[in-house]
Amino acid sequence: MTSRSVAILGIGLIGGSLGLALRRAAAARPAETLTIIGWDREPAAAELALQRGAIDRVAVDAAAAAAAVELVIVAVPVLAVREVFAAIAPALRPATVITDVASTKAAVCDWAAELLGPQFVGGHPMAGSERAGIAQARADLFEGAVYCLTPDQQTAPAALEITTRLVEQIGARPRLIDPHSHDQVLAAISHLPFLLSTALIEVTASDPEWDVLAEIAATGFRDVSRLASGDPRMHRDICLTNGDAIRPWLRAAAQALESFADDLDNSAALLQRFEQAKRVRDELIRQKYKLD
Amino acid sequence: MTSRSVAILGIGLIGGSLGLALRRAAAARPAETLTIIGWDREPAAAELALQRGAIDRVAVDAAAAAAAVELVIVAVPVLAVREVFAAIAPALRPATVITDVASTKAAVCDWAAELLGPQFVGGHPMAGSERAGIAQARADLFEGAVYCLTPDQQTAPAALEITTRLVEQIGARPRLIDPHSHDQVLAAISHLPFLLSTALIEVTASDPEWDVLAEIAATGFRDVSRLASGDPRMHRDICLTNGDAIRPWLRAAAQALESFADDLDNSAALLQRFEQAKRVRDELIRQKYKLD
Repeated sequence: MTSRSVAILGIGLIGGSLGLALRRAAAARPAETLTIIGWDREPAAAELALQRGAIDRVAVDAAAAAAAVELVIVAVPVLAVREVFAAIAPALRPATVITDVASTKAAVCDWAAELLGPQFVGGHPMAGSERAGIAQARADLFEGAVYCLTPDQQTAPAALEITTRLVEQIGARPRLIDPHSHDQVLAAISHLPFLLSTALIEVTASDPEWDVLAEIAATGFRDVSRLASGDPRMHRDICLTNGDAIRPWLRAAAQALESFADDLDNSAALLQRFEQAKRVRDELIRQKYKLD
Repeated sequence: MTSRSVAILGIGLIGGSLGLALRRAAAARPAETLTIIGWDREPAAAELALQRGAIDRVAVDAAAAAAAVELVIVAVPVLAVREVFAAIAPALRPATVITDVASTKAAVCDWAAELLGPQFVGGHPMAGSERAGIAQARADLFEGAVYCLTPDQQTAPAALEITTRLVEQIGARPRLIDPHSHDQVLAAISHLPFLLSTALIEVTASDPEWDVLAEIAATGFRDVSRLASGDPRMHRDICLTNGDAIRPWLRAAAQALESFADDLDNSAALLQRFEQAKRVRDELIRQKYKLD
């Protein structure tokens, strides 16, 4: 009989889903006991996490939760991460491993190097939803998802091992990547799509005929605009910590739109561009289906 | 015992789904018989439509199909519509009603005024999929969807009545709108989202690190890029027939992206813009759910 203990600091969609996924994985290993301690700056979120079975008990503060466990998962918005690192650092036991789930990694890894040392491994599950909060949490959120881990030369091997096991237990696929590359990649595949979604809503909603547009809009509009329903604070934090990587993508996308505007009468150019984009996107989906 | 007859000219996703939906509606009215005659320039598409029960028999050409029925539905790509109108015009019986399903309506209605007269009513179901073709057709594709109809002063009242009944029978909601307004609205809610999707694929796929981007991309990227998998020819035709309406939306979206690039360090501006877009988009979804 072994026992394991995990703290989840910040119990929103991701923190809550991690709790539910860990609980489900533990149910399949009856020889182990797992205790999940939760903390959230909103007591109501911690309470709901308790009711939903995402955590076993609520700690009075982040430090108390961190002091009691072998693995700490920091799941607060990016710009709140540093404060949580500072709060828990003095309370940690030497062998305790710390990871996070923030959407940008370079800033977080810098703060961790300063405040936490080699027991920290940055993490970022490539799963989520535009609907935030513990109420939306799901045990299967991470199934088949890529889960980025950003160790460096200083990272303790045991810390990487424990974090990798966490990723595998929740059904995700660990993908090692350095923090800078992670942020470059995410700017293209996550931060740019969010800003395209939001730009679509901005420009259409400012039209005097928005009521008619909204009435007639169908599934295409719904899907391309979906990310605009995402958590504003989370996306603000992403932009503030990854602006240099995001900016060139925004300029490139603006240029592509301008060049479509120039090509609107050019039958051959339009067809060639649309066919090429379809080929790439169909192939992406085909690969993803094969993998997942 | 009454009997009705419909011709579907062009049996792709929309034409095929119309056949399946009409067949299903007819099954609920045993006192009526319905005959659906199909034609497609690809014999294999007509054959598959027959196998799937979307049509009852295949006509040798568009004119032969149109000559035999009370209602003709033209469901070919926009730039093929004029040719089909010209082919069927001499064969039509005086009381036969003609409608179409093309994504832009001003050009189509001009061609109809010239070639078909008051028995024509333009139509456009706000339903579809990025996956084209009869193999993707579904009887429930139009359920709850808005279905634009674009009659004008010349339209015969009986033609509008028959077209409206068609829309209701397949479970959609008729929405009268003039062709020019339709094209303006669609530029914003359909053509712009397609071009945003395609721009996302263009700029990311041209990156030297595309393999890594594709590997790590998750559901957000998948959804915002979905429309880029749409039929290139259909979208080319849309741009060629609605360029003047689309161009200002492309420029506005490009400007919104440039202004995000300028705002990436501006915490207050980012938060305000993201919160406003989220409010609008959440309200849109709330209204749509209430309606559907």
